[in-house]
Amino acid sequence: MADVLTNPRSDRVRSVRSLAQRPVRQRTGRFVVEGPQGVREAVRCAADRVVDVYLTDQAMERYAADIAAPARAAGLWVHQVTDEVLAVMADSEQPQGVVAVVEALAPSLADVLAGSPGLLVLLTHVRDPGNAGTVIRAADAVGAAAVLVSEASVDVTSPKVVRSTAGSLFHLPIVTGLPVESTLDELRAHGIRTLAADGGGTTLLPDADLSTPHCWVMGNEAWGLPEQVRAHCDDIVRVPIVGKAESLNLAMAATVCLYASAGALTFGT
Amino acid sequence: MADVLTNPRSDRVRSVRSLAQRPVRQRTGRFVVEGPQGVREAVRCAADRVVDVYLTDQAMERYAADIAAPARAAGLWVHQVTDEVLAVMADSEQPQGVVAVVEALAPSLADVLAGSPGLLVLLTHVRDPGNAGTVIRAADAVGAAAVLVSEASVDVTSPKVVRSTAGSLFHLPIVTGLPVESTLDELRAHGIRTLAADGGGTTLLPDADLSTPHCWVMGNEAWGLPEQVRAHCDDIVRVPIVGKAESLNLAMAATVCLYASAGALTFGT
Repeated sequence: MADVLTNPRSDRVRSVRSLAQRPVRQRTGRFVVEGPQGVREAVRCAADRVVDVYLTDQAMERYAADIAAPARAAGLWVHQVTDEVLAVMADSEQPQGVVAVVEALAPSLADVLAGSPGLLVLLTHVRDPGNAGTVIRAADAVGAAAVLVSEASVDVTSPKVVRSTAGSLFHLPIVTGLPVESTLDELRAHGIRTLAADGGGTTLLPDADLSTPHCWVMGNEAWGLPEQVRAHCDDIVRVPIVGKAESLNLAMAATVCLYASAGALTFGT
Repeated sequence: MADVLTNPRSDRVRSVRSLAQRPVRQRTGRFVVEGPQGVREAVRCAADRVVDVYLTDQAMERYAADIAAPARAAGLWVHQVTDEVLAVMADSEQPQGVVAVVEALAPSLADVLAGSPGLLVLLTHVRDPGNAGTVIRAADAVGAAAVLVSEASVDVTSPKVVRSTAGSLFHLPIVTGLPVESTLDELRAHGIRTLAADGGGTTLLPDADLSTPHCWVMGNEAWGLPEQVRAHCDDIVRVPIVGKAESLNLAMAATVCLYASAGALTFGT
């Protein structure tokens, strides 16, 4: 094994740590992935964007086959670090001995539309990192073509979002910073139906037409979708609530809608 | 308005605060509900178990119609407190000026089975409060008869679980402390099919028989369902994953399974 990074106050360690701050991520175009699941998927699916991989002694052994070896095979820098160094680099309390620095990708809506997507989800003004990450994971699970994220939303390269995507961040394009209404217009112009998911919708999910390309439009956690956005969509769809619950949270509603789409598009109903 | 509680070091305030600790909840049989949504549902659906309601001056005004008035109408103790007192009482950083102390209920599995339940979910060794709360909320949303929680799981009256149920805790019975295998036997003896939700299942969710009474069996967040539990279930069902995601998290998988059940049982597919 080569040199072990031992100094938690070194420039390198500080610079990794500083990526926990959004302005630093924006300036450098880089972000940190923590934990074996995320790092493994970064190495597996986005090796050309992985700048450095850091593992503790123990993690180097534990994840030899699924992280260290494939990372080296891909020509990546794999560094051994002390537990103390890793703890400083990571935002999470349990990074399980593994972090990586990765270059952010900025795919455009035009890139996504060029692929004739069948299923998309647009998050508008989503603020909670766990919700954003979970929706990205659900979109990945159902084979959605991409996740679209509006302006004034949480940064999808923030440590909490990255963690909660469980590696899905590297599986499908995430287009960010989109203005909501012009994006809806552009989707419609490409033959993609826009379906607002909203508790006040008149179409029940089982009755929604999910047979052609469509994009789920999800509102903010607290205030939902503003009237002018709902009016801009082709349909407003309500996930049925049979019991006494007032509503579903954003991530649950998105997961149910996306699975309904997957059922209609792939499994047949 | 009567007396305002102003002393954050009083015995009363300390005793509310102490309910953040599991041993204190176990000893007293009481727990704290924080935030308007939870407190409103406690007052609305479980007034006979609400011991005290505490509101700040501002919250007293803001939630006059949906909390303070109905609480008084139900003969409950409604106390006005200072912001400082409320902050000490609450575990959460944003209780929005409202907390209540509620007596825990301990329904038995026999109680639930006596109602001939059509849909249940059993959480085995669930540890994450957010997951437990979200599953309770999803079970409520689809009109499940109850949520069953195994021994060695998170305490469903802990502040974080209570918060994440968004009031659903008061909408359906939650049976806790159940031994897994004998519970599965008892469910089966009552004609309730037990469906393990597991990424290694051979039956795909759209092919699962959800037409008769059944109980979803969900595993721990990290290690899933042990082999002997899976073997004890009538079927092992996999939520389809079309994309590259490795898995869904517990709350997402449970939500999708429960909605599939609701679709089969209520909406038709």
